[in-house]
Amino acid sequence: MSIDADTTVHPALRIAVIGAGYWGPNLARNFALSTDWELVAICDMDAERASVLAQKTGNPAVVTSVDELLEHHDVDAVAIATPARTHHLIAMQAIAAGKHVVVEKPLADTTERGREMVDAARAAGTILMADHTYCYTPAVLKMRELIASGELGEILYVDSVRINLGLVQPDVDVIWDLAPHDLSILDFILPGGLTPLSVSAMGADPLRAGRSCVGYLSLPLADGALAHIHVNWLSPTKIRQMVIGGSRRTLVWDDLNPQQRLSIFDRGVDLKHQEEVLVDVASRKGAAISYRLGDTWSPALSEFEPLSLMVSSFAESIRGGQPAPTDGASALRVLSILEAASASLASAPSHLLEAAS
Amino acid sequence: MSIDADTTVHPALRIAVIGAGYWGPNLARNFALSTDWELVAICDMDAERASVLAQKTGNPAVVTSVDELLEHHDVDAVAIATPARTHHLIAMQAIAAGKHVVVEKPLADTTERGREMVDAARAAGTILMADHTYCYTPAVLKMRELIASGELGEILYVDSVRINLGLVQPDVDVIWDLAPHDLSILDFILPGGLTPLSVSAMGADPLRAGRSCVGYLSLPLADGALAHIHVNWLSPTKIRQMVIGGSRRTLVWDDLNPQQRLSIFDRGVDLKHQEEVLVDVASRKGAAISYRLGDTWSPALSEFEPLSLMVSSFAESIRGGQPAPTDGASALRVLSILEAASASLASAPSHLLEAAS
Amino acid sequence: MSIDADTTVHPALRIAVIGAGYWGPNLARNFALSTDWELVAICDMDAERASVLAQKTGNPAVVTSVDELLEHHDVDAVAIATPARTHHLIAMQAIAAGKHVVVEKPLADTTERGREMVDAARAAGTILMADHTYCYTPAVLKMRELIASGELGEILYVDSVRINLGLVQPDVDVIWDLAPHDLSILDFILPGGLTPLSVSAMGADPLRAGRSCVGYLSLPLADGALAHIHVNWLSPTKIRQMVIGGSRRTLVWDDLNPQQRLSIFDRGVDLKHQEEVLVDVASRKGAAISYRLGDTWSPALSEFEPLSLMVSSFAESIRGGQPAPTDGASALRVLSILEAASASLASAPSHLLEAAS
Amino acid sequence: MSIDADTTVHPALRIAVIGAGYWGPNLARNFALSTDWELVAICDMDAERASVLAQKTGNPAVVTSVDELLEHHDVDAVAIATPARTHHLIAMQAIAAGKHVVVEKPLADTTERGREMVDAARAAGTILMADHTYCYTPAVLKMRELIASGELGEILYVDSVRINLGLVQPDVDVIWDLAPHDLSILDFILPGGLTPLSVSAMGADPLRAGRSCVGYLSLPLADGALAHIHVNWLSPTKIRQMVIGGSRRTLVWDDLNPQQRLSIFDRGVDLKHQEEVLVDVASRKGAAISYRLGDTWSPALSEFEPLSLMVSSFAESIRGGQPAPTDGASALRVLSILEAASASLASAPSHLLEAAS
Repeated sequence: MSIDADTTVHPALRIAVIGAGYWGPNLARNFALSTDWELVAICDMDAERASVLAQKTGNPAVVTSVDELLEHHDVDAVAIATPARTHHLIAMQAIAAGKHVVVEKPLADTTERGREMVDAARAAGTILMADHTYCYTPAVLKMRELIASGELGEILYVDSVRINLGLVQPDVDVIWDLAPHDLSILDFILPGGLTPLSVSAMGADPLRAGRSCVGYLSLPLADGALAHIHVNWLSPTKIRQMVIGGSRRTLVWDDLNPQQRLSIFDRGVDLKHQEEVLVDVASRKGAAISYRLGDTWSPALSEFEPLSLMVSSFAESIRGGQPAPTDGASALRVLSILEAASASLASAPSHLLEAAS
Repeated sequence: MSIDADTTVHPALRIAVIGAGYWGPNLARNFALSTDWELVAICDMDAERASVLAQKTGNPAVVTSVDELLEHHDVDAVAIATPARTHHLIAMQAIAAGKHVVVEKPLADTTERGREMVDAARAAGTILMADHTYCYTPAVLKMRELIASGELGEILYVDSVRINLGLVQPDVDVIWDLAPHDLSILDFILPGGLTPLSVSAMGADPLRAGRSCVGYLSLPLADGALAHIHVNWLSPTKIRQMVIGGSRRTLVWDDLNPQQRLSIFDRGVDLKHQEEVLVDVASRKGAAISYRLGDTWSPALSEFEPLSLMVSSFAESIRGGQPAPTDGASALRVLSILEAASASLASAPSHLLEAAS
Repeated sequence: MSIDADTTVHPALRIAVIGAGYWGPNLARNFALSTDWELVAICDMDAERASVLAQKTGNPAVVTSVDELLEHHDVDAVAIATPARTHHLIAMQAIAAGKHVVVEKPLADTTERGREMVDAARAAGTILMADHTYCYTPAVLKMRELIASGELGEILYVDSVRINLGLVQPDVDVIWDLAPHDLSILDFILPGGLTPLSVSAMGADPLRAGRSCVGYLSLPLADGALAHIHVNWLSPTKIRQMVIGGSRRTLVWDDLNPQQRLSIFDRGVDLKHQEEVLVDVASRKGAAISYRLGDTWSPALSEFEPLSLMVSSFAESIRGGQPAPTDGASALRVLSILEAASASLASAPSHLLEAAS
Repeated sequence: MSIDADTTVHPALRIAVIGAGYWGPNLARNFALSTDWELVAICDMDAERASVLAQKTGNPAVVTSVDELLEHHDVDAVAIATPARTHHLIAMQAIAAGKHVVVEKPLADTTERGREMVDAARAAGTILMADHTYCYTPAVLKMRELIASGELGEILYVDSVRINLGLVQPDVDVIWDLAPHDLSILDFILPGGLTPLSVSAMGADPLRAGRSCVGYLSLPLADGALAHIHVNWLSPTKIRQMVIGGSRRTLVWDDLNPQQRLSIFDRGVDLKHQEEVLVDVASRKGAAISYRLGDTWSPALSEFEPLSLMVSSFAESIRGGQPAPTDGASALRVLSILEAASASLASAPSHLLEAAS
């Protein structure tokens, strides 16, 4: 994946966008603008909606069923932006027809179906990729680069907060609605992907909306590290912040601060200095010398549209035959964590309080 | 409890401060300045340290043991600012001698010992109070007032973050070090005190310091509400923020923003408008109308020293014979939650990830 | 002017947009979307550029000269978005033809020409209006409403800061580039408009760019009040902040803080309490009681597109025959201040420092 | 001047503090704590006030007149913290007696008297220094270091804002009250000191308090640079911010942000790229490439008490016989600018607005 233009001239790949609702238009617009792609068709059961979108994206064909699309239109790939419960059916059809597939998040509505999709694509030799758009933003790409270069040292903890006044979704809880962003980002930036030892979730539905509107996910990682995610639809203030604590430095990503989106703090607790302190219970004051208080640094970020990079990465994967950075396997890891979170939520909490009774 | 001066003239109560280390000097200074109190003695095993403190606080007597203090000095009350594991022994002695007692947080090192202290004080008819200093700050008093007046409606969720670069304590983990603040504040401001249905804790010790340096507490409350606390010694940025989501309004307390410490948002999700939306899975856009976006309001706060109010509240309790706002029972609730959190931390996480293996 | 839909049915007014460069497309788009208007033509010397714009705005006619436009197309009004030095010529032609005119800021390149335009429109009985877009934003409308209602009391001072890393313009200095925003806003929100007693400007061109890149304007107002404006192209941080100090309350507009754009502070210096203090030179401490420290309040703002309101206000003015809120007279006041600022800049500073020599 | 301890052992210098009002206690406390100094006497007409201070600072002698002090007490130096109008008289007496002198800001109440003090000290061979405390803070020392090292390049502009709700002083206007801080800092950090080509001031007294409560100072510097200072007693929000724009980098000092007090932005307008743009009036868009958008960097700052460094710098100057960093000459430059500002304020503004009449 590269944000620089590939200077080799390739014939454009042919794509159809399936689903002209909320996210489809963004995909269609970016495929239409890309020199890697030719947008061949818009597919939606609602012909009117598909036509409106087609008019804005260079007048590709309008079709109203996936069958019709696959039978009558010559495409290399499809982009699926339909409700999650339909992803499996459509993707399996497309893979069976030998098409490459990019799917809006989440990959599918269950881990089992997601795994079938991954297995089918692998068997068919086609690319299966998830549109985890955040992974293609300048900030997240820089975070991945900083972690990969060792700038932060070993990752000790991650704390992510994604809260705002949000619509109570009719079909999914706040964890399924918002946490896929945090999970796919973590899978993208952590070396080896996001592979927690366990998943523990806590949710609340104080409005009696029928699903959690406040959610917390704890993900213990290898070597004593811990990732934690807070998602919330009820917060009057909007926060998009991720702290990644490393053994060398700590990174803070504040996505709502355009003037300083990323900050790298050369501050931390230095355990070597701390050692003597640990034996001296009484004098709290002396221990203050164990901080490391260095400079703070905020890297400049380039500016480009993430979806534009996503569609070119999809093309690059297809042409090179190698997995996309947010491939089906990655999306499957995200999905399996969401499913484990739901299982955790459904189980009863175990440490009842004597004192409270 | 009142921040206005009580105009009735009372003879000053006589107090001794036990422990001249980190917190004792603050207590001694405030008792010495209070017209409610006469500071009679400073007690510390280290006579030098006690003397230094005595010189700065009007030259009360210097004693080096609790026995000596209780035998030879005529005091109404003692203030205990020694290590937590010694609280029980000293307090039980003082209560047995008929003294009123205020104890630095936490009340004791175990719930069992704390309960003994509470029972003993009740039996002896003496006041037992915890110095939960935060509860006497202008911001927390205003929060309690706003909740009590119904300004926020029913409490739906609480999210508290207390993180900074902190010293790895030699004897306690980050939850025992920092969460008592959040827990005692919640016990103080929630109607009926803090009585969670269960306690679920998650911690991490990625530095191999021998104790959790990152901690999360989830406290499900009655009626589907949830309180969550994040404490962290490893964060390069300092945050002291508590969000209290109510059915009518939401309050945000940002203790590091002196220009706007409290904000009350008249914003929220209005479920009545939301109802129709819930049946319409497809159109996410229409649902946006279900927000309520009203004004924001930040009340002016008076300025006074919290410890000064704490010592006068202690005197008021003794004189009136009624429990202090942060009495032993309250401190015991906090202690029992801390203990349940440790039990939760010690138990194995249950939702292992298949996909991760 | 009203942001609510006018329910009376009017035949649409016919408009042409002149100038398809930087700002013209925004105007064309909003006229095309408005039910008050029918976009009849796009006029630009560059036919290609005009055609591209016409295709995006419902295919109005494309014309390449104002003469052609006025001769062959039946329009009620024209919107002029050409370089400032051409405004006078085009507007005078249109007014002579009996057309209503809205002009991009600034009204003209000199006060004299601006005054001719105002006089001509008055004589012809046509509406002449400036597109001071900021005046149609929710925040500025609310500010005007708050001042008009007496919420702030008498205006004591205004301090406006509009700085960022900006392009060094080839034809105008930073004062002519940025200050028209502040000036037109002040003219819009101050009762009676912006009528300073004098204009004093200070500028700097440390990069030797040939024009001021840093500028300060001081505008003494009646009754001892003062408005001050800071504009700057060289600042690495972006600030858009206006403080309006009133005798009752003070308003702060922070346009880059979407979560709290307007704050009204019930804080101030209370001169009545201050009086005694003034005679007592020695005790600075006692004087602290003279502050008034009340609540802070942040009103909710509606959301709409400012240009959409501007075009409907233009229609409303034409239909009602009354001046627009940002009419030619207002734009002329802004222009005359800009011209006085340039004269001030050109004159030598007078208080040379002896000590510096 | 150095913040590291000087390891050479010197006999302590003997000092008296004159004035036990607002600032004197801070000076006395720091001289008492310093190993460089022995605090010999507190001098105040109010013997009671002097005694109270003496008790807190190691019980130096208490005297009630300068004559008595100089006759009967053996001191090397005096620190003057009396009202500004008395500085000259006291300092001249002390200098005549061969004492070194440090004076609270401002140096004197007129430039003429300040110059007499400087001349007298030079003739007597004694050190005369102003207590410009801000110059001894970690942030300002770092700023001086960064500018001296060329990190910022040539200084293009300085914009300083020092506003808050402040007491209307009985004897001086807001410029004399607050701007000495900004002026002394600029004199300290700019290579060669602060030597403006002229001084232009603007003030407002909208409350009819008898003196300016809002003030602006413009100070054109050599080579087209400009410094500007905004001071204000009426602002409900508190701002302490100084922007120093350089040809290579720009520094922002936000003194109220303890987590990031200094930021150095590697951003700016690059005039080389800009050149072509300047000839092309039409295409504003293309010109955007002329920004330089590099990283931002925030240096770690050490922590120490500024007054502690000030008193040790005073000792160092005396021992080394070289001028202090904030010597009399520096304080005189500050004073002369304040006086020129008052002259500018008193003169009538010259650019009356025709349009406003």
